Amino acid sequence: MLSKGEITKDRILAEASLVFNRKGINATSVSDLLTATGTTRGNLYFHFSGKQALALAVLNREREQFMDFLDQSLSKGTPGKALDNFLQQAYTKHQQTNFIGGCLFGNTALEASDSTPVFANLIMVVFNDWIEKVESVILAAQQSQEVRADLPAHDLAATIVATIEGGIMQSRLFKTADPLRNCLNTLRTMLNLQPAADQETP
Amino acid sequence: MLSKGEITKDRILAEASLVFNRKGINATSVSDLLTATGTTRGNLYFHFSGKQALALAVLNREREQFMDFLDQSLSKGTPGKALDNFLQQAYTKHQQTNFIGGCLFGNTALEASDSTPVFANLIMVVFNDWIEKVESVILAAQQSQEVRADLPAHDLAATIVATIEGGIMQSRLFKTADPLRNCLNTLRTMLNLQPAADQETP
Repeated sequence: MLSKGEITKDRILAEASLVFNRKGINATSVSDLLTATGTTRGNLYFHFSGKQALALAVLNREREQFMDFLDQSLSKGTPGKALDNFLQQAYTKHQQTNFIGGCLFGNTALEASDSTPVFANLIMVVFNDWIEKVESVILAAQQSQEVRADLPAHDLAATIVATIEGGIMQSRLFKTADPLRNCLNTLRTMLNLQPAADQETP
Repeated sequence: MLSKGEITKDRILAEASLVFNRKGINATSVSDLLTATGTTRGNLYFHFSGKQALALAVLNREREQFMDFLDQSLSKGTPGKALDNFLQQAYTKHQQTNFIGGCLFGNTALEASDSTPVFANLIMVVFNDWIEKVESVILAAQQSQEVRADLPAHDLAATIVATIEGGIMQSRLFKTADPLRNCLNTLRTMLNLQPAADQETP
C-alpha cells in the first residue's frame, strides 16, 4: 500500500506531466507547477530538489508507462495484427487528449537536444527502445508476410516512429485528428500491412 | 541598396534565428539575444518592440526563405526528379548544420501550439503551404507514373512532411544524419519514386 507521501508524490508527477506537456519544460515555472499540482512550495521541495529533478522524475514515469503501453499494444494476435493494433491505439491515445500537449518525448526531444543533455539522454533511450520494439514486431510480420519485406525492419520501424511524431506535430498544431489519422493510414498502405486472421488452435 | 539600419536589422534577424532554433523561443532571453547579435539593448528595441515581435519577424523571414527553397528545389526536371531533388536538398540543408537547431517551424509548432497562438497561426500557414507545394508536384508525378498513384497526392504530401519532421527530430536528438537519411530513403521506396529521364527537345 502506498503511503500518504507516496500518493502525494505520484499526484504531483501526474499533474506536472500535463503542464510540462502543454507548456514545455523550459517555459514551465515553479509557480505554474504549484498552481497545477495544488501543492505548497515546501511540499514540492520536500519531494523534489527542484524543477529539473521533478521533470526528470516525470520523464522517467512517462517512459515506464509508455514502455508498458508498447508491450501491451504490440502483443495482440499475429505480428501484423499487433502492428496494426499499436497504430490504432497510438491514434486513440492522442485523439482522446484532443491533441493538447502532444507527445512529451517528441516535445522534449526538440526542446532539450541542444541544451539539456540530461533530458536528451533519457529521450534517446525512449526512442531507441521504441524503435527496437516496433522493429522486432515488423521482423516477425515480414516473416508471416503481413508487412512488405523489401526494406529492413529497422528502417521501417524508425520511419514509422518518425511519421507518428510528425503526424502528432501536425494534429497538435491544427487541433484536428486528420493529419495523424492520415499518416497512420498512409503508412498502413505503404507498408503493405495486411493483418492475417489469427490461427485458432483446432 | 540597404541602409545601415536595414543591414543591422537583417543581421539581428539572422543571428536571432540561430539562437531561437537552438534554444527555443521560450527559453531564449533578451540577454541571450543581445549576446548572440552583439547589439545593444537600445538598438534591439529600436528595431523591435520586444522578444515576441523579434521572434515573429524571424519566423516570417524564415518562412519566406523556406518558400523560396521549396519553389526552387521542387522545380528541377520531371515531377519525379523534382520530388527526389527536394528530398535530397532537404537532407543536405540539415546535414550541413550537423543537426544543431533542427527545423525552426517544427520546433515552434511543438513549443507554441498550446500556448502562443500568434506563432502557431504563422506555423500553420507554413505547413499548409509546404504540404500544398509538395502535393502539386506529387500529383504531376503520379500522372507521369513516377510516384505510386493508389493514394491521394494530398495524403502522401502530408505524410512526407510529417516523416521529414520526425526524421529531423531523431537526427537532431542523436546528432547523426542516419535517421533522416533512412526516413527519406524509406519514403522513396514506399512512394515507388522512380524519377524518369528528362525529355530533351530534339
